[in-house]
Amino acid sequence: MLVVMRPNATPTEINRVVEAIKAQGLTPHPLPGATRTAVGMTGNTLAVDKGLFEVLPGVEEAIRVTKPFKLASREMKTDDTVVRTKFGDIGPGTFTIVAGPCSVENLDVTLRTAEYLMSRGVRWLRAGAFKPRTSPYSFQGMGVDGLKILAQVREKTGIGIVTELMDTEHAAAVEEYSDVIQIGTRNMQNFSLLKRVGQCRKPVLLKRGMSATLEEWLMSAEYILAGGNYDVILCERGVRTFSDHSRNTLDLSVIPPAKVLTHLPIVVDPSHGTGKRAYVPAMALAGMAAGADGVMIEIHPDPDKALSDSAQTISFTTMDGILDKLKAMAPVFGRTL
Amino acid sequence: MLVVMRPNATPTEINRVVEAIKAQGLTPHPLPGATRTAVGMTGNTLAVDKGLFEVLPGVEEAIRVTKPFKLASREMKTDDTVVRTKFGDIGPGTFTIVAGPCSVENLDVTLRTAEYLMSRGVRWLRAGAFKPRTSPYSFQGMGVDGLKILAQVREKTGIGIVTELMDTEHAAAVEEYSDVIQIGTRNMQNFSLLKRVGQCRKPVLLKRGMSATLEEWLMSAEYILAGGNYDVILCERGVRTFSDHSRNTLDLSVIPPAKVLTHLPIVVDPSHGTGKRAYVPAMALAGMAAGADGVMIEIHPDPDKALSDSAQTISFTTMDGILDKLKAMAPVFGRTL
Amino acid sequence: MLVVMRPNATPTEINRVVEAIKAQGLTPHPLPGATRTAVGMTGNTLAVDKGLFEVLPGVEEAIRVTKPFKLASREMKTDDTVVRTKFGDIGPGTFTIVAGPCSVENLDVTLRTAEYLMSRGVRWLRAGAFKPRTSPYSFQGMGVDGLKILAQVREKTGIGIVTELMDTEHAAAVEEYSDVIQIGTRNMQNFSLLKRVGQCRKPVLLKRGMSATLEEWLMSAEYILAGGNYDVILCERGVRTFSDHSRNTLDLSVIPPAKVLTHLPIVVDPSHGTGKRAYVPAMALAGMAAGADGVMIEIHPDPDKALSDSAQTISFTTMDGILDKLKAMAPVFGRTL
Amino acid sequence: MLVVMRPNATPTEINRVVEAIKAQGLTPHPLPGATRTAVGMTGNTLAVDKGLFEVLPGVEEAIRVTKPFKLASREMKTDDTVVRTKFGDIGPGTFTIVAGPCSVENLDVTLRTAEYLMSRGVRWLRAGAFKPRTSPYSFQGMGVDGLKILAQVREKTGIGIVTELMDTEHAAAVEEYSDVIQIGTRNMQNFSLLKRVGQCRKPVLLKRGMSATLEEWLMSAEYILAGGNYDVILCERGVRTFSDHSRNTLDLSVIPPAKVLTHLPIVVDPSHGTGKRAYVPAMALAGMAAGADGVMIEIHPDPDKALSDSAQTISFTTMDGILDKLKAMAPVFGRTL
Repeated sequence: MLVVMRPNATPTEINRVVEAIKAQGLTPHPLPGATRTAVGMTGNTLAVDKGLFEVLPGVEEAIRVTKPFKLASREMKTDDTVVRTKFGDIGPGTFTIVAGPCSVENLDVTLRTAEYLMSRGVRWLRAGAFKPRTSPYSFQGMGVDGLKILAQVREKTGIGIVTELMDTEHAAAVEEYSDVIQIGTRNMQNFSLLKRVGQCRKPVLLKRGMSATLEEWLMSAEYILAGGNYDVILCERGVRTFSDHSRNTLDLSVIPPAKVLTHLPIVVDPSHGTGKRAYVPAMALAGMAAGADGVMIEIHPDPDKALSDSAQTISFTTMDGILDKLKAMAPVFGRTL
Repeated sequence: MLVVMRPNATPTEINRVVEAIKAQGLTPHPLPGATRTAVGMTGNTLAVDKGLFEVLPGVEEAIRVTKPFKLASREMKTDDTVVRTKFGDIGPGTFTIVAGPCSVENLDVTLRTAEYLMSRGVRWLRAGAFKPRTSPYSFQGMGVDGLKILAQVREKTGIGIVTELMDTEHAAAVEEYSDVIQIGTRNMQNFSLLKRVGQCRKPVLLKRGMSATLEEWLMSAEYILAGGNYDVILCERGVRTFSDHSRNTLDLSVIPPAKVLTHLPIVVDPSHGTGKRAYVPAMALAGMAAGADGVMIEIHPDPDKALSDSAQTISFTTMDGILDKLKAMAPVFGRTL
Repeated sequence: MLVVMRPNATPTEINRVVEAIKAQGLTPHPLPGATRTAVGMTGNTLAVDKGLFEVLPGVEEAIRVTKPFKLASREMKTDDTVVRTKFGDIGPGTFTIVAGPCSVENLDVTLRTAEYLMSRGVRWLRAGAFKPRTSPYSFQGMGVDGLKILAQVREKTGIGIVTELMDTEHAAAVEEYSDVIQIGTRNMQNFSLLKRVGQCRKPVLLKRGMSATLEEWLMSAEYILAGGNYDVILCERGVRTFSDHSRNTLDLSVIPPAKVLTHLPIVVDPSHGTGKRAYVPAMALAGMAAGADGVMIEIHPDPDKALSDSAQTISFTTMDGILDKLKAMAPVFGRTL
Repeated sequence: MLVVMRPNATPTEINRVVEAIKAQGLTPHPLPGATRTAVGMTGNTLAVDKGLFEVLPGVEEAIRVTKPFKLASREMKTDDTVVRTKFGDIGPGTFTIVAGPCSVENLDVTLRTAEYLMSRGVRWLRAGAFKPRTSPYSFQGMGVDGLKILAQVREKTGIGIVTELMDTEHAAAVEEYSDVIQIGTRNMQNFSLLKRVGQCRKPVLLKRGMSATLEEWLMSAEYILAGGNYDVILCERGVRTFSDHSRNTLDLSVIPPAKVLTHLPIVVDPSHGTGKRAYVPAMALAGMAAGADGVMIEIHPDPDKALSDSAQTISFTTMDGILDKLKAMAPVFGRTL
């Protein structure tokens, strides 16, 4: 951390900053300049609040130099994390495709989707049994009955299951029935829930919050890693901006910096990212080109009849087109599907 | 809802929309125009997803005309809600001041703050026993021990307690010890938690999410109201924008439209809204001028030593200045402090 | 346009809206509903301000149904615009690459860059003679001398020139020396300048404003088209959001909806979009995958010594890598380089 | 500026940074730490691009410590600037009210508005002769004829004139007819125009760009000051965010930090800030409470018939109410109206 003094700061004020740094068990390094002094500090500044210094007289601002996350950082672990599962690896080299209906509606729709996916070599099914809905009057998901349908479908087809956990109350059930536990956008900073899945023995797919910075997102991953669960997959799904041509603004540009800062794999959700089915194929392909390790897409045997998110859900035929193009692109990006 | 057809939509396509509307139990009203046709519909459209129509051939977009919230709306209840408590009313006419340290640190700090507030006629103390922290390595709050300190302080001073609930697990404890249950920004769309506090018998202070629209915020209030708890107080605490001169962008301009759309009271938190103590007084006063029903401010006997959020925490002396100005302004706005 | 009445609007209020619509020479279509009435209107509503109706008593809001741009719209011109130049076509089917230093620094750097590009089959050089700089103390460009260097380089190498026009004063000079006139982000709504280039006989590359919606961007294109210049190329270069991991947020998701709404070609600028050279290659490739008709990239023979924007400028070697990958990807997207 | 090295940076890399700093004529100050080294520098870093260092091997990032504006900064001029005009002072102590129709429509409307304002003690009329309109098909203003009407009104009533300049072409005319030259939001970074008004001998009211940071806004003011015109008044008029309850998000929270960073006066425009007349009074009052030096409000003798911006234009009666409340509030804020 670096504490920048105002140009007119007095020696007494500078000294007070030096003492405040020592009081935290850190070593101060005053750096006098032509117009003002800055005071650097060394030691473990992770737990120190910038505000401690910013409130002292004569201080202009404190600037954090070291990143506040550790286990998620590339500095701590240089090589890429590859999440290994019996349904395939998730991470660089491969390209993971996850697809399925927004919510578990019934056995038939779920099974038909899984059978289609397996026939195309896709090993992961997504579908929500618990649904976070903006309105209390909307369909809230089938709950544990939905989880059981997912387990049945896995047994019949051999497909892996990605499904959302919304609260600690259902953590044990979702851990039992799923192969990857999804933490949704609205819960990215539900810290009680993050601590809970840190205890789970299944990989966690962590969606980015609607207005989360990359650093905050990695701090939320840090909560899970700090709990002892190292299998975290990041999922970019669009952020909220002024832009109104799509439901959210899919921030593909977060992928290259994420790859610099963290070793964790990252996938892209073009369905929520755009909110409109016509835009999903282009953004799925752009996801691979931008460096993502996979995509997660909402599909349905009869999209117009999907119980939720029908506007962003694509048909099997559209999915075929995406898969064909991803396969054609993959060699350029050193990936195998 | 209004379904707008593309200019070149065929009669068959228009008819398909008409049938789709009927299939939802609604009445279609086709409206032919010079360049295109629109189809209105009447009936209960609250539960109907726009996407159902937007995916049909020939449709350009579906526009929702009716607001999706009911119990929170001014249409349902014309007169202002005033939350009545033994520590005073919260709502128009009065002006509620809530203040206190970011977190419960110990009995001494909490008690001194409460005594100061009561001596100035402020009847509400805020302090967190459970703290949502971005980093897993930061102080996470004293937990239930913190709640007990709050209860002790209430007993000694007679001050009312506002404190945050972070998960359903601690709902019973927080309901027992608090007088108003706070739902934090990061949990505004933690729907499991909203349903749980809908069952509580204490008023709920619902902070706006960091990138929540007014409509989404009111939908979250609707979750609580729909559960049977009608004592909801909204709290604007800054939203996330590109702007970097303050920690968040305090959106005072949400107050006038909130007062049009809903009957619920609304308070302003200038401490989180700005993130810098020097800006807190101006924004607290601006809150009253903008039409808020109260303010919530972080204060501490020794702000530089506050365990969390010290950069935005003000001293008793600064609080004195705010209170004096609020009192001087109050008659202009028809409020009593 | 649709005027939505409040639920309690009186027949008199509804009638007043009907009369106000007639007064604009339009035809009103009242649409009574279960809870409220809406009044549609037909005729040319392009020039009518929504506000005219929103201020009438009993009105909740007016909703614009028809898009406010005409010449830029896909409705007016169904087939894609391909801008034809002697340096190649710009539009679907092909994929246009524009590259060069941020600013014209001297003949040597500019010439070496052009020679490198031509050797790789790239037919367009970009470089600014007039530079919009946030600070009055930064290098402001070489001005007309820079334009002359560009013309010299074109003469020697045969490369086409894209360069920015910042004010009407230099319009004639830039039109004379350039092959494509660039309008920068900060001037996207400099309407005097847009009108002026509507008179020019050279194609215009119109960068998106930093917080422009797609509709506003197309309205700015409409200014140029309405002036009689039909060769407009859109350029997405990142928008401003809360996100801080890159200089701007490159909004690739604007490409699919732009392709639906307008017939104009669109290119992507990953250099300004990300602001960091390490992220440029991934976002250039993602641009093609997202459906762009080309990319514009900042390159320099010695990027570390570039006079401006060096942090986002790549080397010829890095450019080689991008070109190789774009060529490998092109067949998947039906494009030829 | 501070250059932060990566944890694994080699002595050679650190030395290269040291040499790069010297090459800019600055003095390097290496600061070794426990996990990494940072290199500070002193001297005039204003003209030095961060990117010069960020591209060197082993460098993580360069952090600018000194603000890039000089003449606009509080460091350069400690005491508040008060713009002195024959229509009154603009700055702390007083509270300036500017009001009038969006555009000059004709003599009658303009004169009646000015007469009303003078009767209420308001000394400034605003009205646009040149109008920046998103659509080329909207009313573009009366041009020089509008300026002449404004001059007539000033002659008859003695009111001061604030009017917008959109391009250098009309700079001489606007300078001649106006008393304060307004630079609009969309031109905040039209640097050619800023340089031009730096030459003018009339005060300049500089509106904040729709997505401008405070620093960028002050850099634009710096362009004008650097040209020799020291009478710059800042005007906050709402910024663009995700928020959709008002046309823009009026960022009152920019006022306290602006007052820290700069000595220039700042006024608030609640009309454009909200876009809806019902919200204008509350936000005008909140502007004074937040510390603004004045407000600028759109009024019209018959708001429903205003040629532009009618939805956000208020009546004389509503203005009366605002003036009464501002007068009642003024003593609390040490201001005289």
